[in-house]
Amino acid sequence: MVTQSDFLPKYYQISSEITEMIRSGELRPGARIPSENDIIRHYEVSNTTARKVLHEIERAGWVTKIKGKGTFVKSSGFINRSATKILSFTKNMRQAGLVPKTRLLDKRIIESGKHTTVSGRTYAIKHPVCRITRLRQADDTTMMIEERYISMDFCPGIEKENLEGSLYDLYMDHYKLQISQIDQSLQAIIIPDELNTHFHVNHTIPGLQVHGVTFCGRELVLEIEDSIYRGDRYHFTVQATP
Amino acid sequence: MVTQSDFLPKYYQISSEITEMIRSGELRPGARIPSENDIIRHYEVSNTTARKVLHEIERAGWVTKIKGKGTFVKSSGFINRSATKILSFTKNMRQAGLVPKTRLLDKRIIESGKHTTVSGRTYAIKHPVCRITRLRQADDTTMMIEERYISMDFCPGIEKENLEGSLYDLYMDHYKLQISQIDQSLQAIIIPDELNTHFHVNHTIPGLQVHGVTFCGRELVLEIEDSIYRGDRYHFTVQATP
Repeated sequence: MVTQSDFLPKYYQISSEITEMIRSGELRPGARIPSENDIIRHYEVSNTTARKVLHEIERAGWVTKIKGKGTFVKSSGFINRSATKILSFTKNMRQAGLVPKTRLLDKRIIESGKHTTVSGRTYAIKHPVCRITRLRQADDTTMMIEERYISMDFCPGIEKENLEGSLYDLYMDHYKLQISQIDQSLQAIIIPDELNTHFHVNHTIPGLQVHGVTFCGRELVLEIEDSIYRGDRYHFTVQATP
Repeated sequence: MVTQSDFLPKYYQISSEITEMIRSGELRPGARIPSENDIIRHYEVSNTTARKVLHEIERAGWVTKIKGKGTFVKSSGFINRSATKILSFTKNMRQAGLVPKTRLLDKRIIESGKHTTVSGRTYAIKHPVCRITRLRQADDTTMMIEERYISMDFCPGIEKENLEGSLYDLYMDHYKLQISQIDQSLQAIIIPDELNTHFHVNHTIPGLQVHGVTFCGRELVLEIEDSIYRGDRYHFTVQATP
């Protein structure tokens, strides 16, 4: 039984408790979670509150409702992604047991370059960049939309390469570049409804917007990234130290 | 002029460009941003699109609309917070030039302890914890809601201490504990409307939910944290390396 605080809404505290059971693996993928009636009885709440609990858990992406059968923990739950270790989308998906796919939506050379600001510092590529817009998918679900602005000084002719795989592999294997660091700024957003078609959802979902600068040596900007990760599918993990 | 992609909505591309001008400091706090008419003329778009551009920038928390005057860059913009360096809320706010304040909403001893899961690993405090629920404010705006479950083995009598300041200071100065690491999981969410009263907003805002485990030595769990940061006020910064 949850020890209820008087200040956070009851439904929110109960949904946190059930979510924690999913997060910890106590409720495994495919398991049925407590029903509306279970919640009413166990937590001694009204049916309005119980319905809100289930709605909240569903909205956060943990479960699927099957009409007449109940609410079940999704089989492919969350993607854990380390925020401090450079890892390609492709490898991250494979680690999670998913099949990655990339759809190139657009590529274009921008003669004027590109600049961005991360943590109050502005970084610029002052020569032409190749901008590519891609959907990164896993098991046919779009997990992120990315725009990458790649320095054409470091990667001449990149617009003619295969841009539907890992760019990191292309940088390393084809251009012999070593990525030294990526500086990123992460912000929670509400994904604009117009992008929902790309994510194949018909309700409002949260997103994590990432502005990034990739360096191939001290102060040498190889690419600038603007991406949106699905908030209801991604957990970013990070260790903080003193 | 933005080089438009055919795949992302026009209003979104234009709002990103204007947002970048704010992020980079080209448009400073207090500056007027382009009006609906400016946008229509400069980007050659309809007034519906121009209105959406302004709405999007406002929704993301960058600007304030003043009726009959225009739309202006907020004076206290975003809080940059490093995700990898341990820093108290209090010090983070002072660095940003804001006045921090903490409101203790609730404190309670939970005899059964607390567990959480970060990056697929479950951590538990199996003895009593002191749970405190607080609003962390800056210049009278609530920036985050936090729940912390503090080990009473490591911090006996903590429920009688002043809990409206930095807990890190209390751990170090009063209990002589050294924090060694915090493992965190970050997820973008849509903040449940019921919490809006705490944030003093009347529209839906994004949030960053943080599940954290604080260690005071290898595998020694000092506290477990569940917090929600305002997504429209916080940027988390992080460096990734190979």
